[in-house]
Amino acid sequence: MNDKQHIAQHAAQQVKNGMIVGLGTGSTANFFIEELARRQNQEGLQFKAVASSVVSSIKAQQLGLPLIAINHIDGLDLYVDGADEVTPDLTLLKGRGYDLVREKLLAKAADSFLVLIDNSKRVTRIGENFPIPIEVMPFAWQLVQRSLAAIGGAATLRQTANKDGLWVSSHGSLVLDVTFTSSIDHQALNEHLNAIPGIVEHGIFSGLTSAVFCAHEGQVEEQWA
Amino acid sequence: MNDKQHIAQHAAQQVKNGMIVGLGTGSTANFFIEELARRQNQEGLQFKAVASSVVSSIKAQQLGLPLIAINHIDGLDLYVDGADEVTPDLTLLKGRGYDLVREKLLAKAADSFLVLIDNSKRVTRIGENFPIPIEVMPFAWQLVQRSLAAIGGAATLRQTANKDGLWVSSHGSLVLDVTFTSSIDHQALNEHLNAIPGIVEHGIFSGLTSAVFCAHEGQVEEQWA
Repeated sequence: MNDKQHIAQHAAQQVKNGMIVGLGTGSTANFFIEELARRQNQEGLQFKAVASSVVSSIKAQQLGLPLIAINHIDGLDLYVDGADEVTPDLTLLKGRGYDLVREKLLAKAADSFLVLIDNSKRVTRIGENFPIPIEVMPFAWQLVQRSLAAIGGAATLRQTANKDGLWVSSHGSLVLDVTFTSSIDHQALNEHLNAIPGIVEHGIFSGLTSAVFCAHEGQVEEQWA
Repeated sequence: MNDKQHIAQHAAQQVKNGMIVGLGTGSTANFFIEELARRQNQEGLQFKAVASSVVSSIKAQQLGLPLIAINHIDGLDLYVDGADEVTPDLTLLKGRGYDLVREKLLAKAADSFLVLIDNSKRVTRIGENFPIPIEVMPFAWQLVQRSLAAIGGAATLRQTANKDGLWVSSHGSLVLDVTFTSSIDHQALNEHLNAIPGIVEHGIFSGLTSAVFCAHEGQVEEQWA
């Protein structure tokens, strides 16, 4: 069993009968979905699942998990997902590849939001390893880019893999990938980004994490907020 | 000449040759657009205009104003529009009828944002006379409603005039109209709303106003931030 499998199985122990569980997206989240399917089949675990993306929805459907739509819930017990970066105060960078808005919506609505990582995801500040993804309304991207420049951010429109076109999110947004030359405090940055009109959502998850589970040499280290 | 015409003409005096000017939406903004057309025709005033809504775009086109698209600008000199409520610290409530996102985008991007009102729009706190409009992603409305309830807000989905359907914004968002029973500080509320995922934009305009021009008994009172 590799570290990702191990930590996913550890997290799946948090799921109790009757819960509504949010499913993350990515390789570790896939192991979590598989473990939920195993517990459903072998242990008779009863729960409902809500997906953070089309990808996790398809994976869950294939494995026979009981899915409910995100617009049919008014809360959930648990949301389990990965992250691209985690700071010591448990602020996250997320959404580089998947559906930023649904992920943040689930993180906010969940009673408990568990983040599964390995040590390579730990950073001292958000943006250390990756640009910050920002979903923008198509007509607003240039004005948002200027607002970002005013706070020290260099933003480029994300392209499709073949460079022939622009990446479009599942909500029809364009994505600006933003880097900051100076080391800006991520709490202040979170508030700045929240206040810029034309931004649909951004990749800084502040004050939402309940716990980080970190896999390391076959052990799982839990850090609760 | 009525008060609305008078104040619109007063505001139009702020437009100088070469400016890019944002056009608001509503009865006073319409007088402003008419006065710009008059100055263009009679005084040879040179400027470009960017519209805050389809309504103001059509009005401007009909009068022959030189329009540019909002996605083709990286800033503007002046934006002139009305407001539904204005507090003593020049925080605004806007967007009850029109395009919240474009209005806030122009207000943020403009070097100068002039707000045209009469005394009936003055309030001590935002939400005094009207619910606060909040544009939400359709799949997120129920989770946003719960987040609003957690900070004391009662939110209902805006319906179409005939009550047969739900109001949809020009960006495909649903609109929640929110009232707060307790008098919540509008700066704190602005930050709370900014931080709720699933909200595309909301009607509190904080820190964006350059000046309020208020019509009263044939006079125009200017209040600069």
